[in-house]
Amino acid sequence: MQDVEQMAGLIHRHRDEDHDAIRAMLVELPAADIVEVVNAVPSVAEAAEALELLPLSRAIRVCNQPTLRRRSVLIEQGPPELAAKLLSGMAADERTSAVRAMSARGQRLLLPLLSQDIRREIELQLRYAEGTAGDMMSTEFVRLDPTMTVAQAIDRIRIVARDQEAIYACYVIEPGTGMLLGAISLRDLVMADAARPVSEIMRPHPVTVATGDKQKEVAHKISKYNLLAVPVLESDNRVIGFVTVDDAIDAIIEEQTYTVLKMGAVEPGALDDPYMATPWLTLVKKRATWLVVLFLGEMLTATAMGHFEEQIAKAVVLALFVPLIISSGGNSGSQATSLLIRALALREIRLGDWIRVLGRELVSGLSLGCILGLIGTVRICLWQVLGWYDYGPHWGLVAATVGLSLIGIVLWGSIAGAMLPFLLKRLGMDPATSSAPFVATLVDVTGLVIYFSVAQVVLRGALL
Amino acid sequence: MQDVEQMAGLIHRHRDEDHDAIRAMLVELPAADIVEVVNAVPSVAEAAEALELLPLSRAIRVCNQPTLRRRSVLIEQGPPELAAKLLSGMAADERTSAVRAMSARGQRLLLPLLSQDIRREIELQLRYAEGTAGDMMSTEFVRLDPTMTVAQAIDRIRIVARDQEAIYACYVIEPGTGMLLGAISLRDLVMADAARPVSEIMRPHPVTVATGDKQKEVAHKISKYNLLAVPVLESDNRVIGFVTVDDAIDAIIEEQTYTVLKMGAVEPGALDDPYMATPWLTLVKKRATWLVVLFLGEMLTATAMGHFEEQIAKAVVLALFVPLIISSGGNSGSQATSLLIRALALREIRLGDWIRVLGRELVSGLSLGCILGLIGTVRICLWQVLGWYDYGPHWGLVAATVGLSLIGIVLWGSIAGAMLPFLLKRLGMDPATSSAPFVATLVDVTGLVIYFSVAQVVLRGALL
Repeated sequence: MQDVEQMAGLIHRHRDEDHDAIRAMLVELPAADIVEVVNAVPSVAEAAEALELLPLSRAIRVCNQPTLRRRSVLIEQGPPELAAKLLSGMAADERTSAVRAMSARGQRLLLPLLSQDIRREIELQLRYAEGTAGDMMSTEFVRLDPTMTVAQAIDRIRIVARDQEAIYACYVIEPGTGMLLGAISLRDLVMADAARPVSEIMRPHPVTVATGDKQKEVAHKISKYNLLAVPVLESDNRVIGFVTVDDAIDAIIEEQTYTVLKMGAVEPGALDDPYMATPWLTLVKKRATWLVVLFLGEMLTATAMGHFEEQIAKAVVLALFVPLIISSGGNSGSQATSLLIRALALREIRLGDWIRVLGRELVSGLSLGCILGLIGTVRICLWQVLGWYDYGPHWGLVAATVGLSLIGIVLWGSIAGAMLPFLLKRLGMDPATSSAPFVATLVDVTGLVIYFSVAQVVLRGALL
Repeated sequence: MQDVEQMAGLIHRHRDEDHDAIRAMLVELPAADIVEVVNAVPSVAEAAEALELLPLSRAIRVCNQPTLRRRSVLIEQGPPELAAKLLSGMAADERTSAVRAMSARGQRLLLPLLSQDIRREIELQLRYAEGTAGDMMSTEFVRLDPTMTVAQAIDRIRIVARDQEAIYACYVIEPGTGMLLGAISLRDLVMADAARPVSEIMRPHPVTVATGDKQKEVAHKISKYNLLAVPVLESDNRVIGFVTVDDAIDAIIEEQTYTVLKMGAVEPGALDDPYMATPWLTLVKKRATWLVVLFLGEMLTATAMGHFEEQIAKAVVLALFVPLIISSGGNSGSQATSLLIRALALREIRLGDWIRVLGRELVSGLSLGCILGLIGTVRICLWQVLGWYDYGPHWGLVAATVGLSLIGIVLWGSIAGAMLPFLLKRLGMDPATSSAPFVATLVDVTGLVIYFSVAQVVLRGALL
């Protein structure tokens, strides 16, 4: 798989007589690798054509990969009969996400071409909000009756598994009510005596999720309990599907992307939007919103500085250290915020722990502030004594002002950075939302106030 | 599981007569939940005691969870006979990580109590570096001969699976050489005719990893190809183990933690170090290093400002906008860096794409710069015209200086932020290493130079 670009290039430049060569090249690859090649083909029409060249079963497996970019568009672009065949063959959960992302026109055109069963299933699943267990789930699980024997259960699985790549889990369902009695794995069945009823070997009270649970929660449960699949319950406790570990990994990676982008103050878009494929204007829009919000916040620094204009005019030397001082507050705030975002995401810390965190940050912030304050003071004294710069006759007091301010600002940055994720979570927002730049903005404004207030006290009678 | 804290408190305050109650309470819970309770017990001795109270098989399952904090210490703390029983019962990969994290004294004490087979296995696995496939792998896979029939293979699995919770994969091995011929799942075996040889139904050429592959690569392969397990090959191509999807999820979550911490300029420590459990001094040390490095970098701002002291003295009004200007550069840099860290991690973009990214960032940065520049200019003019602040007789030129500088600085921030991850990756470092604060520091210094250079040109003859 060194030559994704090369293969994509071949598809891009191809003429009709190359069809066989392209088909031969793609058929050699696993579906996940075909996805990479198709993703690298710039034009949608050409990518759709590559999909058409594949044998149907292969094309279906490619469409089953959530990493296939422009999936809905690629399916819509092809001939409607092929699109219907692809959709019919796809796994229920992937089919639903593909249909969900289609244009209204595509949905109107393609849905009537599907069987009534599939159509009903899609309509059922589209009722659940995007990013919930109901949206992520597959509905084709193996239903077993409690009275079945192990041998009968294995026969049932042999029938169902014919259409399905992986049998993740089989659920024992109470006849009539549809309630979940227990879960049973293929391993449990293979290990058990063929004549025993499944009710004796099933695992009762399996971990479950509700249709409305967010994908983050579902992924957390699957990872915490090391599950291969988790059953999804409707509000009346009927099992209506299951989410697999594959889907959990995709959800974890998606959440990770959101966290990184939010930490950088970028509005995360759909997963379908990789950096290179995002149109230039969309990219600017995604960034402009937060950048403008932060800019409006930072404008307060101009207001704050305005208040101290007289001080600056009297002691220009003070202005020299403004960037150093405020950036130190921002950096210590970023550190605290990253630590807390992560501790909250890993559930090491709960909302109620904020007071203990505050205590720790008071000590840490003070220590870090003293370290930076000392370095800052030494730097100024050294430059002055070595004659590298002249900070004026009161350079000792200037050095003291910078040192003391650094202690206060690093302390304040650490506290603000540690508390903001709690506040965001309390307000029901993702703690990662733009935290680092938010903290920096907050700390910049207050940092200036701290700096000039310290200066007012230390330099009174000398420079001010 | 609402009351983890409550249960941990009960263990913390317990007297000897409470042992039965604690045992009864814990035995009700799944192993992953017991882990949460034990993690929440502050004292190591009490946590070790809780582990001792569990039935052995339960205690083993708890120790098998990589999320169990202080695992090695807890095992070492108990009576050596119990420790040996726990280690002997654990899964090979978890056992090795537990032994790896033990004190030299603990290893010397406990290793001789284990069976020779287990000891040899631990010694084998300890040879592989931490965080590689060799370190992550389990070695107890099901080996099948190509000449076995499906029925014989199922019998073999029934013997091996007796000791193991999950049978992830069975590998068909060439007798004599130990080379991997193919992989076969329990599903494939159950579906197949019992009399056929496994060589006919195995999947040849399965995806594999090498012992030295990093956990990030291993997790990527498992997630890309939707695998439940991937076989690990020694350099001579013999299969010596396999890594499961559970381990892949743990690796993905660990990498995610590293990314978030690195983005916030915190040196990531071991996974065993949750925020609350990290001693105060360790926390300060982890943060001080990067904070000091960034501080030394930011000191260049004081040097840069020193160069412009004369200009500031002549036009104090210029100092008012310094924080606004440099923070805008930092914020646009953070955005670009987050986007690129993520695109590189998701392999949407390769190193060779840097020139195309540069092109995109030139356009995006210029657009974003114009937006912020316009807002900044309007802000100054508005405040002046409405009489909210007096920026002096040349306020129009000051507004132009700020506006033009913002365009230059946001453009520069976007470019620097987008290019730094490429540079770090090119140097063999993780692109997330401290990128956002690094970019901010870089942009702060150059931002000042841009600002005062623009001022020099625009305000020449007026204020300067």
